[in-house]
Amino acid sequence: MQPFDIRREHLLKAAARTFAERGFHRTSMRDLSRASGMSLAGMYYYVKGKEDLLFQIQKACFERVMAGASSAVAGGARPTERLAAFIRHHLTFFASHMAEMKVLSQEAESLTGEAHEKVRGLRRRYVDLCLGLLADVEGSHSGAHVDRRIAAHTLFGMMNWIHTWYDPKGPVGVGALSDAICRLFLSGYDSGTQLDCLEAER
Amino acid sequence: MQPFDIRREHLLKAAARTFAERGFHRTSMRDLSRASGMSLAGMYYYVKGKEDLLFQIQKACFERVMAGASSAVAGGARPTERLAAFIRHHLTFFASHMAEMKVLSQEAESLTGEAHEKVRGLRRRYVDLCLGLLADVEGSHSGAHVDRRIAAHTLFGMMNWIHTWYDPKGPVGVGALSDAICRLFLSGYDSGTQLDCLEAER
Repeated sequence: MQPFDIRREHLLKAAARTFAERGFHRTSMRDLSRASGMSLAGMYYYVKGKEDLLFQIQKACFERVMAGASSAVAGGARPTERLAAFIRHHLTFFASHMAEMKVLSQEAESLTGEAHEKVRGLRRRYVDLCLGLLADVEGSHSGAHVDRRIAAHTLFGMMNWIHTWYDPKGPVGVGALSDAICRLFLSGYDSGTQLDCLEAER
Repeated sequence: MQPFDIRREHLLKAAARTFAERGFHRTSMRDLSRASGMSLAGMYYYVKGKEDLLFQIQKACFERVMAGASSAVAGGARPTERLAAFIRHHLTFFASHMAEMKVLSQEAESLTGEAHEKVRGLRRRYVDLCLGLLADVEGSHSGAHVDRRIAAHTLFGMMNWIHTWYDPKGPVGVGALSDAICRLFLSGYDSGTQLDCLEAER
């Protein structure tokens, strides 16, 4: 990376941590200057302001997680393997970007106008990748399946909720976390079992 | 309900909506006065201030969802039925309290001191109820199970994430939503299947 990119990266990282801790709206450029150790003028060399910083954090995150997921799923032969690779990649990526994950979850609506639309577009491409993987799993198995959109939202809920409880430095490694979430989701999504505790199946 | 309780209830409801929309820290007592149609002095008759309002919202929510869940699970004969009843009750309760759900999710750390501790205690009791139901499901089945704490957090993620996407007035009824989430979680948690896409099982 060039020095410009390294400094910009450092600023985005510090800003993500500060937004995650204090919330976007309570954070001032002065707070960000303190957190990054950069002068106010210095920060404006890299970004247009606080909203632009939030935009750059969200954009960089979705671009990276998308690129990583695309290559992670490319290695899987069977549909369930590709979906497992997607889940594992998402969790591994965000376990090392917990502040960014909190910002993506909690400040999704803090952007406005064109920036909001751009991030929505990036998010949609990522969700579409997941929906495609779910469709492949469905295609490869018969049996009852949960509605694909509900399943995708629910899967993101299982994964993204980790920002409220998971400590990447704690006793549960990200491998064990990924295995647990893969097991819960894959066996659940892929099962055609009738469950008589469900209203529709009584 | 007595007139005092009705007015207080109305204030809590209006405040939950405003906190959900604007965030706790960006909301002023003046905003809450506008949202509730009550005077500033009138509001102070019911609550001590903004932080007390947030506390009362969180406390009332956990007390109600706990009471409702306790009686919902009491009707189930088998462990999976009781767990399904818990999931269904949680989703039904929060589908009609979406603003409160967003406030519980996003402002969990906005309380401080004694209020924070009290809400933590209520939350823990509710999580413990869920952990007990998971233990019963485990006890009634052999086979591999996902770590109980990870499973509980993941289940709350599946359910609580609905505040980001679910529209209770939209095409998916809360019955269908509950069935989908029960199916995903119960088949996943209750399955002893070896999955060769999991790292630990290769």
